[in-house]
Amino acid sequence: MISWSEERLARAALGGLLGYGAGQVLSLAAEAGPVEAWRLIKQGQIGEARRSAMLAWAATINPETIAETTEQLGFRFVIPGDDEWPPSLGDLAVCNLKTNETVLGGAPVGLWLVGPGHLADWCHSAVAMVGARAASRYGESMAFRLASELVDASGSQGWTVISGGAFGIDAASHRGAMVANGRTVGVFAGGLDRPYPPGNSGLIEMIAENGLAISELPPGAHPTRPGFLARNRLIAALSAGTVVVEGGLRSGARNTANWAAMMGRVVMALPGPVTSVMSATPHRLIRDGEAVLVTDSNDIRALLEPIGQVPELPFADLARPGDDLTGDENVIHEALPGRGAMTISEVVLASGVPVTRSIKALQSLESKGLAQADSQGRWRIRRQPAST
Amino acid sequence: MISWSEERLARAALGGLLGYGAGQVLSLAAEAGPVEAWRLIKQGQIGEARRSAMLAWAATINPETIAETTEQLGFRFVIPGDDEWPPSLGDLAVCNLKTNETVLGGAPVGLWLVGPGHLADWCHSAVAMVGARAASRYGESMAFRLASELVDASGSQGWTVISGGAFGIDAASHRGAMVANGRTVGVFAGGLDRPYPPGNSGLIEMIAENGLAISELPPGAHPTRPGFLARNRLIAALSAGTVVVEGGLRSGARNTANWAAMMGRVVMALPGPVTSVMSATPHRLIRDGEAVLVTDSNDIRALLEPIGQVPELPFADLARPGDDLTGDENVIHEALPGRGAMTISEVVLASGVPVTRSIKALQSLESKGLAQADSQGRWRIRRQPAST
Repeated sequence: MISWSEERLARAALGGLLGYGAGQVLSLAAEAGPVEAWRLIKQGQIGEARRSAMLAWAATINPETIAETTEQLGFRFVIPGDDEWPPSLGDLAVCNLKTNETVLGGAPVGLWLVGPGHLADWCHSAVAMVGARAASRYGESMAFRLASELVDASGSQGWTVISGGAFGIDAASHRGAMVANGRTVGVFAGGLDRPYPPGNSGLIEMIAENGLAISELPPGAHPTRPGFLARNRLIAALSAGTVVVEGGLRSGARNTANWAAMMGRVVMALPGPVTSVMSATPHRLIRDGEAVLVTDSNDIRALLEPIGQVPELPFADLARPGDDLTGDENVIHEALPGRGAMTISEVVLASGVPVTRSIKALQSLESKGLAQADSQGRWRIRRQPAST
Repeated sequence: MISWSEERLARAALGGLLGYGAGQVLSLAAEAGPVEAWRLIKQGQIGEARRSAMLAWAATINPETIAETTEQLGFRFVIPGDDEWPPSLGDLAVCNLKTNETVLGGAPVGLWLVGPGHLADWCHSAVAMVGARAASRYGESMAFRLASELVDASGSQGWTVISGGAFGIDAASHRGAMVANGRTVGVFAGGLDRPYPPGNSGLIEMIAENGLAISELPPGAHPTRPGFLARNRLIAALSAGTVVVEGGLRSGARNTANWAAMMGRVVMALPGPVTSVMSATPHRLIRDGEAVLVTDSNDIRALLEPIGQVPELPFADLARPGDDLTGDENVIHEALPGRGAMTISEVVLASGVPVTRSIKALQSLESKGLAQADSQGRWRIRRQPAST
């Protein structure tokens, strides 16, 4: 028998009970504390309508066995107060939802971990990437590219990519991060010794070897349908923002986005061809103002990193002289004639930009060496000198 | 010599002078009225700094000759007060911009027309579709599809598609409208006898034969760069909304969108793959809140037609049972287990939707026959009866 504290054992036991009904278990743990909650459950001192069903389930749980199995498998079990416990999980408290006597959606009672990463450190700068299992080639290639760029610490800071370890967008995101030698965390809905989906076990092993695989369910636990949805709240909580890469109209990615929004995280979505059903969820989130449209990793960084660290929402890969111009400056630079000059009045007419903004933009273009005014106040394009 | 009124002749002459400088000509016409403006110009009684240049240009203009050429070519010249003059052009007055003594961006002095359409009638329900000349295959096929669906009057009302007669998105939009036997208006930046670009003359002839080709410049006038941009204000003014289909970062479509926004028109943009530079302008407009994301013709109709006439911003082509559900209803319907039931608490946890909204959505799902509660208040999916 391994030496685990009473609290740790109680939390492990409660983790084992999540499969019975996460709502009841988490609310009881939040109200009574984990040790007392487990004692009450074991002794049948709970007011649940389905007390006997819960008791029967609890009777099958031996915390010491869970502890032993955890250690034998080389997993870690981290709980609040541990060095590796991510403070960001505390934000799940703000989306606790009271209904009758029940409190829901709270922090997990504990997390099983496997892999070389340090969860708390890695989640200091983490971004979630979520999307459909039946992703398109476009979605998978974009997830791969975004993840590999986001983990790259060479330019700005390196980000940890968090996803759900499933096929499609999840797998492409994890792979992109690992191929770029970056940090990735897979959050699983079942026990870490039961890779799901089985066909994805190669990826899951790679994550466990190079990154971190985590779950709020103990070894042996099967993933359940509500478990997949509850798992999404962990993905949202552990990251500073969630990027919805692709998803059909009923994608689970919407659920993760909801959790992220509820916790005040940044929700982002990648647009795609409207001809693809996999674009439906990102487009709907963007259209309804629930997600910010992002087109590349710089957009994502610009939304998540401190202002000034990256250029403000740049459009990368389109770099041409003048690409650092504002919208007005671009339009006015475009409106100036290739030859000859224009009065401010003509600039306003040609650009459609109101006069005060036109004047401001012209002055700014002048300061950037892209336009100049003559003595009569007529404006012309100033050719860029050949690069020296 | 054809009998044109003094005002009509003066307006035609001022139209001929636009190539000199639309800003000065339109502001003078707005201030003094067209007849007096033309008299002042001809007599050199103008305060312009470049009076002699304007006089030299005006000396080349013979209103009677313009009238004669117009009639010979089979064109019409319509002016305010004419039956065919679209009232919507009056909205250009609200984006008149005063700078020093000059007023800019106003209504055109007159419009040259050719084609079987009735401009005022056709612009009663008109939508502008704009975008890049160097469009992608995706952009062109979407422009074609959207236009052909928008002109279709079989379901809801038929829309007139307005565009600029150029290559790329413009051409695909005009073609889509005409292939569906719909109404289309091409707004040109030069004289209607000078199709531009020349390589597009087949399309331009088709528009003149089946729709309407219009210009604020008289026969013989060459298109100019500022003319192309000034032309955009007409496209924006004549339509209830502008759809930006595709465009690189410096696309002229931004200019049309600016004019549309200035006149309180609906600005819409179609997202596309972020891997295409042609998606840059739609994505930027959407991200910056300057355009509403639209994915199909129903989205566009929903934004332009009276409420209740079309389903509210539906996502078409994805029809499945339950597709008329709200966001919350969808998420909650998805969260309910395939077998068994959930308490409201569990629904809240599984869906991530706050409790009051969850309850509302469950009740709505119940009223739609998609969910039901048992006597203990546990919710389950209600299978749809096979269609009868």
